Amino acid sequence: MWPKTHLTDLPGVKHPIIQAPMAGSTTVELVAAVSNAGGIGSMGYSETPSATIREDAQKIRTLTDKPFNLNFFAHDAPANKPEIIESARERLRPFYSAAGLSEIPQDVSKPLLTFTEERLELLLDIKPPLVSFHFGLPGSAAIESLKKAGCRILCSATTTAEAISLEQSGVDIVIAQGWEAGGHRGSFDVNHDDHGVGTMALVPQIVDAVNIPVIAAGGIADGRGIAAALMLGASGVQMGTAFLSCAEANVSDVHLEAIRNARDDDTRLTKAFSGRPARARRNNYIESMAAQRLALPDFPTMYTLSDPLRKASDDTLDNRFLLYGQAAALNREMPATELVQTLVAETRNLLG
Amino acid sequence: MWPKTHLTDLPGVKHPIIQAPMAGSTTVELVAAVSNAGGIGSMGYSETPSATIREDAQKIRTLTDKPFNLNFFAHDAPANKPEIIESARERLRPFYSAAGLSEIPQDVSKPLLTFTEERLELLLDIKPPLVSFHFGLPGSAAIESLKKAGCRILCSATTTAEAISLEQSGVDIVIAQGWEAGGHRGSFDVNHDDHGVGTMALVPQIVDAVNIPVIAAGGIADGRGIAAALMLGASGVQMGTAFLSCAEANVSDVHLEAIRNARDDDTRLTKAFSGRPARARRNNYIESMAAQRLALPDFPTMYTLSDPLRKASDDTLDNRFLLYGQAAALNREMPATELVQTLVAETRNLLG
Repeated sequence: MWPKTHLTDLPGVKHPIIQAPMAGSTTVELVAAVSNAGGIGSMGYSETPSATIREDAQKIRTLTDKPFNLNFFAHDAPANKPEIIESARERLRPFYSAAGLSEIPQDVSKPLLTFTEERLELLLDIKPPLVSFHFGLPGSAAIESLKKAGCRILCSATTTAEAISLEQSGVDIVIAQGWEAGGHRGSFDVNHDDHGVGTMALVPQIVDAVNIPVIAAGGIADGRGIAAALMLGASGVQMGTAFLSCAEANVSDVHLEAIRNARDDDTRLTKAFSGRPARARRNNYIESMAAQRLALPDFPTMYTLSDPLRKASDDTLDNRFLLYGQAAALNREMPATELVQTLVAETRNLLG
Repeated sequence: MWPKTHLTDLPGVKHPIIQAPMAGSTTVELVAAVSNAGGIGSMGYSETPSATIREDAQKIRTLTDKPFNLNFFAHDAPANKPEIIESARERLRPFYSAAGLSEIPQDVSKPLLTFTEERLELLLDIKPPLVSFHFGLPGSAAIESLKKAGCRILCSATTTAEAISLEQSGVDIVIAQGWEAGGHRGSFDVNHDDHGVGTMALVPQIVDAVNIPVIAAGGIADGRGIAAALMLGASGVQMGTAFLSCAEANVSDVHLEAIRNARDDDTRLTKAFSGRPARARRNNYIESMAAQRLALPDFPTMYTLSDPLRKASDDTLDNRFLLYGQAAALNREMPATELVQTLVAETRNLLG
C-alpha cells in the first residue's frame, strides 16, 4: 500500500510518517517512540547548545536502533536597523507593563545560532540518519559533506519554486509545507507578502516539478489526511500538531487545553513573537501587533525581545505563543506508539 | 469506487464532480457538456435578469436531460456609509486617470440582486434539480419551498461553524470551500478577518461535524485531488478553475493566458474589486489597494465602482479581476466532456 520511497527504503523505517521537529515541544522519548513504531521521529533545534544535541542523539540511540531525524533552522543572521528595534520596543512596552514586567531585553546582539561550522562538525560526528532544514539550506559544502557522511537531507518548501531550488541544491527529499501547518512557515524569503499555498494545491504541483520524493505537511491529522496526501502523489507525510497531544510531548497545560478546544479557524500567521511568520493560536497580542502592521526586527531578534513576555504569561492565552495547525481539533490524546499504530491502521483501512 | 451520496443517488448523475458556477465564465454549453458527461454542470448568477435565467434553463434542458445546478449569491443588501463610498472614490481616482477614464460611477444605489422573492418564484417555476447558494442562505421559507419543489439545496461553508449552521438550516449538501479556491470566498460574515482554512484541514472537520454529504472544493485540479478529497471523507468535489480552460468556458484571452502562466503563489484574496474577499491573480491594483488597508464599500457596491476600470483594462494584468485558484497551473485545455472523462479515469486509476 505505501509507495516505495527513499524513506521506506531506509532500513528500519516501515511507515513514511515523519513526526515534525517542533523545537521545544519534542522530547527524545517522543522521537524514539515514533521511530520504534516504524515512523521517523525528529528533534528540532534552534539555540540548543551542541553538547545537549550530542547528549540527545546518544539518548535517542539508547532508546531506539531505528532511524531518526535532527532538524535545524538555516536562516540568515539578522540584520536589523536600530530604529526597527527601537520601534519594536515601543510597541512591546504596553504589553510588558500590562504583564507587570518592566525590562524589555537590551542585549539583542546574540542571535539564535544559524547553521554554523560547529553544527556541521557536530553532525558529521553524530551522523544522524536524516537531517532536515527549515527556512532554506546552509551552504552547498555543508550539504555535500552531510550527504557524504550518509545523512539523508530533507528541507521544507512552501512553494513549487522553493522545491525546485532545493532539488537543484542536492536535497534528497522535499517537505511540501502547506498553509495549514502549525508553527513557523519554512519560506526562504520573508520579506515579501506570503499568501500561503494550501496543501491540496501545493503537493501535486511540487510532485510534478521535482524528481525527488515529496513529503506532504499541513492539515494532516489522521489516516484520512495521510491517504489523501498519498493520492496527491506524496511519498509520505510530516505531522506535527497531531503529536503535540502525545504523552511524550513537552507541552504546557495551557497549550494542551488550547488544542482540546481548538477550532479550524482559531489560528493565524504571526511574526509578532519571533520575527518570522508562524501559525499560532490567535490572541490579543498577536491581533494587536498585526493591526499595527509595522516592520518588526528579523528572526530571531524579535524572539529575544518577546521572550520575557512569553515566559511571564498567566493562565490566559493573551501573550502565549501557542503553535498548532488548522486541523488541531482532530487531535487524539494517546501515547506516540499508539498514535502511529492508529494512523497506519486508519490509512490501511482507507486504501483497502 | 465512488461513495454513495445524495449526488450519485440523483438519476442521471454518474460522477460526483460538480463544475463550479463561476458567474460570467460559465456558459449553458459548458453546463450541458459536464452534465451529459455524468457530472453536474452549474450556472452562476448575480445580477442576471430573471428572463435570461429562464432562457438559460430552457437551453440547458434542450442540450441535456441530466441534472444541473443553478447558483445564486445570498448576500445582505449593502449598507454603506457615504464617507466609505467617498473614500473609495478617492482611492480609485488615480487608477481611473491612469487608465484614461474620468468617470467613476455616481449611481451606486442599484445593488446587484440579492436572492429576492422574484428569484424564488422563478426557481419554483424552473425547478432546477439542484440549487446552490454562496455567501450564506436566503430565509428559511425560501429553502423550505425549494425543497418541497424537489430541488436539492447546496451551500458553501468556509468553516466548520458555517457548515453546522447550514445543516441546521436544512441544506441537503454542504460545499466545504477551502482557502485554495479561486473566486469569491463563500464566508457568511466578511466583517471579521478571514485567515482561511485549507481544504486538507477543512474537509475532515466538516465531515465529522455534520450528517449531510460534504463536497470538497479548493485546490482540486485533477484525479489526484479528487481521490484525495474522497479519502478525506468528501462525497464528491466541486471544481471551478479546472473548467476555465475548457473550450466551452467564457474566458478572455488575457485570463486564459494568465492561467497558462499560473504559479501556485500568484493569487491572493482581494476585496478591491467587489467588496468581498475573492481569490484572484495578483496585480498592481490589488496590491496597491491592499497596501492602503482602508475599509471598502460592501459587496456589490465596490463592484459597481470598479466596473469601468475592469472593463477598460488593456492587455496587461493591471486592473483585471482574473479569478482562479492555487492549482491553476495544473489546468489542461480540452473540451469539458473530455475533461470529465479524464478526471474520472485518473481517479479510478488511483483508487484501483
